[in-house]
Amino acid sequence: MSQTPDSAVRAYIEEHRSLFLDRLAAWLRIPSVSAQPHHAGDVRRSADWLAAELRDTGFPAVEVWPTEGAPAVYAEWPSDDPEAPTVLVYGHHDVQPAAREDGWNSEPFEPVVRGNRLYARGAADDKGQVFFHTLGVRAHLAATGRTAPAVNLKLLVEGEEESGSPHFRALVEQRAERLAADAVIVSDTGMWSEDTPTVCTGMRGLAECEIRLYGPDQDIHSGSFGGAVPNPATAAARLVAALHDEHARVAVPGFYDGVIELTDRERELFAELPFDEEEWLRTAASRATHGEADHTTLERVWARPTAEVNGIGGGYQGPGNKTIIPSSALVKLSFRLVAGQDPDHVEKAVRDWAAGQVPAGIRCEIDFGAATRPCLTPLDHPALRSVVRAMERAFGTPVRFTREGGSGPAADLQDVLGAPVLFLGVSVPSDGWHAPDEKVELDLLLKGAETSAYLWSDLAEHWRSAP
Amino acid sequence: MSQTPDSAVRAYIEEHRSLFLDRLAAWLRIPSVSAQPHHAGDVRRSADWLAAELRDTGFPAVEVWPTEGAPAVYAEWPSDDPEAPTVLVYGHHDVQPAAREDGWNSEPFEPVVRGNRLYARGAADDKGQVFFHTLGVRAHLAATGRTAPAVNLKLLVEGEEESGSPHFRALVEQRAERLAADAVIVSDTGMWSEDTPTVCTGMRGLAECEIRLYGPDQDIHSGSFGGAVPNPATAAARLVAALHDEHARVAVPGFYDGVIELTDRERELFAELPFDEEEWLRTAASRATHGEADHTTLERVWARPTAEVNGIGGGYQGPGNKTIIPSSALVKLSFRLVAGQDPDHVEKAVRDWAAGQVPAGIRCEIDFGAATRPCLTPLDHPALRSVVRAMERAFGTPVRFTREGGSGPAADLQDVLGAPVLFLGVSVPSDGWHAPDEKVELDLLLKGAETSAYLWSDLAEHWRSAP
Repeated sequence: MSQTPDSAVRAYIEEHRSLFLDRLAAWLRIPSVSAQPHHAGDVRRSADWLAAELRDTGFPAVEVWPTEGAPAVYAEWPSDDPEAPTVLVYGHHDVQPAAREDGWNSEPFEPVVRGNRLYARGAADDKGQVFFHTLGVRAHLAATGRTAPAVNLKLLVEGEEESGSPHFRALVEQRAERLAADAVIVSDTGMWSEDTPTVCTGMRGLAECEIRLYGPDQDIHSGSFGGAVPNPATAAARLVAALHDEHARVAVPGFYDGVIELTDRERELFAELPFDEEEWLRTAASRATHGEADHTTLERVWARPTAEVNGIGGGYQGPGNKTIIPSSALVKLSFRLVAGQDPDHVEKAVRDWAAGQVPAGIRCEIDFGAATRPCLTPLDHPALRSVVRAMERAFGTPVRFTREGGSGPAADLQDVLGAPVLFLGVSVPSDGWHAPDEKVELDLLLKGAETSAYLWSDLAEHWRSAP
Repeated sequence: MSQTPDSAVRAYIEEHRSLFLDRLAAWLRIPSVSAQPHHAGDVRRSADWLAAELRDTGFPAVEVWPTEGAPAVYAEWPSDDPEAPTVLVYGHHDVQPAAREDGWNSEPFEPVVRGNRLYARGAADDKGQVFFHTLGVRAHLAATGRTAPAVNLKLLVEGEEESGSPHFRALVEQRAERLAADAVIVSDTGMWSEDTPTVCTGMRGLAECEIRLYGPDQDIHSGSFGGAVPNPATAAARLVAALHDEHARVAVPGFYDGVIELTDRERELFAELPFDEEEWLRTAASRATHGEADHTTLERVWARPTAEVNGIGGGYQGPGNKTIIPSSALVKLSFRLVAGQDPDHVEKAVRDWAAGQVPAGIRCEIDFGAATRPCLTPLDHPALRSVVRAMERAFGTPVRFTREGGSGPAADLQDVLGAPVLFLGVSVPSDGWHAPDEKVELDLLLKGAETSAYLWSDLAEHWRSAP
């Protein structure tokens, strides 16, 4: 099997750049927000749009797979080589909520190119990174003169990743035979920076819950009753305050059970990256670091489990004052998990802990959504070497290793399909995932397509020889 | 000066009951919510409506007094007795925010009579209790055959009480000469119960603040950055959690400075009241008491200073999840103050305390509104005896003493006018001040009018003889 000629790949991508961007923009205009019920129709529309596009790309079999929630899109393109390995690419077509008034400089669902950047909700997370594979496989075929890819290529693009993938595991279990693969390529992560291409070797898991605290049956007068009954907003605050100890460690008993600690070698690899804390803080739009004692910032975001408040609310939040004791309060928490932690164990630990924090007279309800498991790829995996080589050809520089603080259902694919999970992502930290003015760097997106174009030949060549 | 004949007063009130209720309902239909800017026009309309009504009642001089905020209504009715004392009645025509969806069984600004109760925002707090004086003075005149009241009657009805009376003290200072009085009657409190009429001898003061905590410049991804930067929602929660110590005492250093502790006699008087904690809890719509150690519930709500969270908010509060670290969070606090506490001192104590609670990287802004001072009437004051006698005639039972946990600008009147402040209120705890389904007991409202009708003659008779 011959090496794909790099110049031919690059020429193809350059020639199709404009069309690629037009089509991606069309997809980004669909507000496929899975967390908001009123966008359910848009999520379905996004799936149908992608399915049609994949058919146009050349995938001979494309299906929209319903779930109990939002639909996923599945596509298959068998290799013309009967001994080719099978690769499953994973991504998602749903996006985070977004509204202009959250601080966007343009409409979140009206893509705008400014300079080398494309601004829109989903530009980087994850539509852009799913979409570069359509250009990548076309370039792969054009440059190699093949009529089918060098690998059996499968694509699974789910519609509920931003809602914690509640039906994803069931879908994968139900469709395990169709999804069977020798390796899974997850394109829903980022890399270190524009200048330092990296491959991610692990993602944190995620457990999310909403805690509702109920006090008086209705808001009551803080003058008539203040100081003499429990206040659910106070209870909510005390619960959140008790989440961390004075070393910023999570104070929920049992939370750290099973955590696989970083090895010295891994800590060294992290420390070798050109990390500039000032610059990182700018990306985080923050003015100080803060986190678990005895760990660096990179260790905190990549390899340590966390508890964060995503939302808190109760009582009067409008203009002026309202002298009430509120009837109820609400806390939304998310826990990032690392390899070795079991989400079910964490859920139980949090439930037991919360029950012990709530004062008499306050009723507490906790709802956990479906959790996402953490995952970790061995540094010496042969398929990981293929990804590294393909990226090095596209970027022209050595590729280093990172982990990802965010979460994805990659671990479910690993568990159910029994296949190793590899990460191929070209987003950079400044892309603003989940934030206003989310964007993607267009040059990087095209490098992603180029990497994808090289990867299938490289994997086919080296995967055979893998033990 | 002759005693007002009770039967004549009662007959007059019975005869005019229906008209009185119709007019009150018309006033309650005006949503005079001072805290919400979009209701500013309604607050002005409420003032104009009341001014017209007071002219109809017979007050020869009625004026709407503008302030930098909402207008107050002032009315004067000189006595025909040149040696009569001057009494200033205080109330307010603005109301708390209210919306049907907060849990009201009927529209808050569409008064409805069910049984002996009139339901509407402001029915008890405070329009109903201002309005009974219009029927009271008419009954006083009709029953005594006078053409002017036995006292020089002044009425001041402000429009910003529910917003902390930010311009009230300035108004009183500016108009001190017009407002000059020998005694102030505040009709903005309640009594023990329908069966146990009481006179209130003090109100707690109120200091309110909004604390805004700013973290990242925008919401950021909790996966990419979680665990490594300070979260303003966590900071808000920790601030609120630090407000109270493990004995539910306010933990702000200096907060209790100057507090006049209850005497043993006062604690005994409180303990003698027919207090049923189960019933009190039902009124509080709550399932447990909770408060400062070593104090009874009545002591906690009447005579102890408190800190309450009226609202807390930050991050995502909608359906589903949003895995962010929020950009900012908000806490609305109110502090009830008791005699001896200085609001300026409390404000400074809270500011100093809050500044020390906020972690590096979080910016904290605190806005305090204008405070309301606490006040206390001596139990042996001769004008207080007149109020007690008038109530005893109206209710036909002995009157006992309470305090009021709520707050009003009575202390400003006491400070500026140098006049003793007395409380005449007929609302009961179940009236639901500031809550959904606020109501007033119609029979009690008419007893209020009856008390008012007796009071002017009694005060004129006994005030002269006061030292």
